[in-house]
Amino acid sequence: MPECGLLVSAPGKVILHGEHAVVHGKAALAVALGLRTFLRLRPGGGERLRIHLPGVGVRREWDVAELRALRGRLTGGANSPSVEQLDTLKEFAGIAADASAPDSLAILAFLYMCLAISAKYGDVPSVDITVWSELPTGAGLGSSAAYAVCLAAALLHACGAISCPLKDGEATARWTEEEMTLINSWAFQGERVIHGNPSGVDNAVGTWGGALRYQSGKITSLKRVPMLRILLTNTKVPRSTKVLVAGVKEKILKFPAIMNPVLDSIDAISQECQSVLEAMPTNPSPEYYPVLEELFDINQHHLNVIGVGHPSLDRLCRVTASHGLHSKLTGAGGGGCGITLLPPDATPLAVEAAKRDLCACGYECWETDIGAPGVTLHSSSSLNAQVLHALSES
Amino acid sequence: MPECGLLVSAPGKVILHGEHAVVHGKAALAVALGLRTFLRLRPGGGERLRIHLPGVGVRREWDVAELRALRGRLTGGANSPSVEQLDTLKEFAGIAADASAPDSLAILAFLYMCLAISAKYGDVPSVDITVWSELPTGAGLGSSAAYAVCLAAALLHACGAISCPLKDGEATARWTEEEMTLINSWAFQGERVIHGNPSGVDNAVGTWGGALRYQSGKITSLKRVPMLRILLTNTKVPRSTKVLVAGVKEKILKFPAIMNPVLDSIDAISQECQSVLEAMPTNPSPEYYPVLEELFDINQHHLNVIGVGHPSLDRLCRVTASHGLHSKLTGAGGGGCGITLLPPDATPLAVEAAKRDLCACGYECWETDIGAPGVTLHSSSSLNAQVLHALSES
Repeated sequence: MPECGLLVSAPGKVILHGEHAVVHGKAALAVALGLRTFLRLRPGGGERLRIHLPGVGVRREWDVAELRALRGRLTGGANSPSVEQLDTLKEFAGIAADASAPDSLAILAFLYMCLAISAKYGDVPSVDITVWSELPTGAGLGSSAAYAVCLAAALLHACGAISCPLKDGEATARWTEEEMTLINSWAFQGERVIHGNPSGVDNAVGTWGGALRYQSGKITSLKRVPMLRILLTNTKVPRSTKVLVAGVKEKILKFPAIMNPVLDSIDAISQECQSVLEAMPTNPSPEYYPVLEELFDINQHHLNVIGVGHPSLDRLCRVTASHGLHSKLTGAGGGGCGITLLPPDATPLAVEAAKRDLCACGYECWETDIGAPGVTLHSSSSLNAQVLHALSES
Repeated sequence: MPECGLLVSAPGKVILHGEHAVVHGKAALAVALGLRTFLRLRPGGGERLRIHLPGVGVRREWDVAELRALRGRLTGGANSPSVEQLDTLKEFAGIAADASAPDSLAILAFLYMCLAISAKYGDVPSVDITVWSELPTGAGLGSSAAYAVCLAAALLHACGAISCPLKDGEATARWTEEEMTLINSWAFQGERVIHGNPSGVDNAVGTWGGALRYQSGKITSLKRVPMLRILLTNTKVPRSTKVLVAGVKEKILKFPAIMNPVLDSIDAISQECQSVLEAMPTNPSPEYYPVLEELFDINQHHLNVIGVGHPSLDRLCRVTASHGLHSKLTGAGGGGCGITLLPPDATPLAVEAAKRDLCACGYECWETDIGAPGVTLHSSSSLNAQVLHALSES
């Protein structure tokens, strides 16, 4: 491990097409988001392991010897967190048995990954780890997976299980396919601690970046995906994914002959979108966008048909349409987030006006992109001041 | 023919579900509208045939002898208007060869039906005919068919081909099934004069009333249909049915895997709606409405997907939704008309507020019903003052 430590980042994700339909065996397209989670690992002092999560107000530290002893008690589980192991960790960290707050789950996932990875590859490391994210939590943007991917990369590196591919003078570097497979598999265990039964899509997007197709448990990377500029808007309307998924199922049971063709149509939209993305050059010209925009519009109608729309999302679509931009909900719907395509010929004035109008609705709005790279190593000079500042807060 | 003359009416139509999908072999449901066309036939004076259409500013009369001579020149055609026959009639009536204005087509259809019916069943009648309609023309509401149905009934009656089922003291009466079949077949010929190649749905609705299912050229009456209150709203945005139909076809060719399932879903909506209507009692309680409303909402999204929506129709839906009411476009879309269900538990206040807000958009709005009776004979005391006044203008 280099004395200077390690700077790692991993992207969040959005669903481009196929949300909800994926629950019923159809394809979904998930893409890496330009908003990322950043991790700084530094050699620790005095045989202590420290974790600092400024975004959720967590700052904890433990004696490495104490963690070694704890690790000895975590038998079984074979690469996968058991209920007993998690109960032991909760008790150790003073976390309530039914805790579900992001800070509690983040500590739990950290402890589990740290002990399980060190048990397999080396000793419990004496390091200081700080994680900070541009991603809001609980908005369906894969923030927990980006966190788990960063942790997996940092801890595997700290235990010597993966290399440090960043050469002197380079701004960024990525790991080998084999190393990324290892990072992804451990990130998935972290996701299990946080979510119980995750699909594995979010950590795969966080690791590999770009775009993935997910269908019936099978995840495949798209051949080649351009970076596309988007607006990501959080309506901040809270919703329960569980309730929305149940509502869709109920609609399908109530009107099978009406709803099943809609799922088929959504499946075909994902397929068409994949074909268009794979045919697009790295810097796509405006003529590629009308089809992508049309697919957004159609799917947004379909998502309304299956009952996961919301007046806040209708408003989002209307506001962006008034500036010539096309939007759809992304993820669970019923509020939550929407994404808006920004074609290369969208004028900065139109984009600024759309952002202003969305903020005037009380929404939070980021100008970012999709198709971003997966887990990445950074030199500190390659990170912007805001990120460095957040990571160096003491 | 009774000396007092004859009062006949026929309803307009709206498409409840299946517009556009019907062009691609799917089912459509057409229902009779509470807005009607009325015809008064009175014995004429001095061997003259007079037609008066106060709504379109037409007042014409001819010598019966002259019409007899004209009839002699209209050979061939066998119950169906030929190009040559129509050219002869246009020349006779001083109508330009390429005339398409409602008044010209109304005169042409009248002359054709009068001569063809009298050639088959009797002499050219000396009568005064006045026709007035509550239906706007060119709005896709079957106004030409309602006109042709009224004319067919009146002319067949004047020539003695059908009875006068109205008994003394009765307010209204209807013809036998057999007589209605005759009326419908002649109304279809009138529609051919006006539209060239009509589907026959509009005149069938005008004749039989209630609700009809139309699929691949086959028309079947629904077993039993309740009268349902609606708002009918004309956005007054002009559109070309031909251009809209071509646009849908283009979308299907562009995205067959995305669009064909949408047509399947629309087909299932028509089927589901038919089942609900046939299960509803004559005075349906509010609990039947949520499904009908849900089907409206779903189909409106589908119609947007196939590209026949319009901002004026989005606005119509939004305005009525703000009063708890559900709407969809009806007919060609791209502007034109929309219909809004009025469940029995909609308060008069909410309905009035919705009408006021729709009028404030510059739309024209009628509170009426669907599932109305077909061609009907009336006593003059059964007609309201506005209708009687319109028909008695001299």
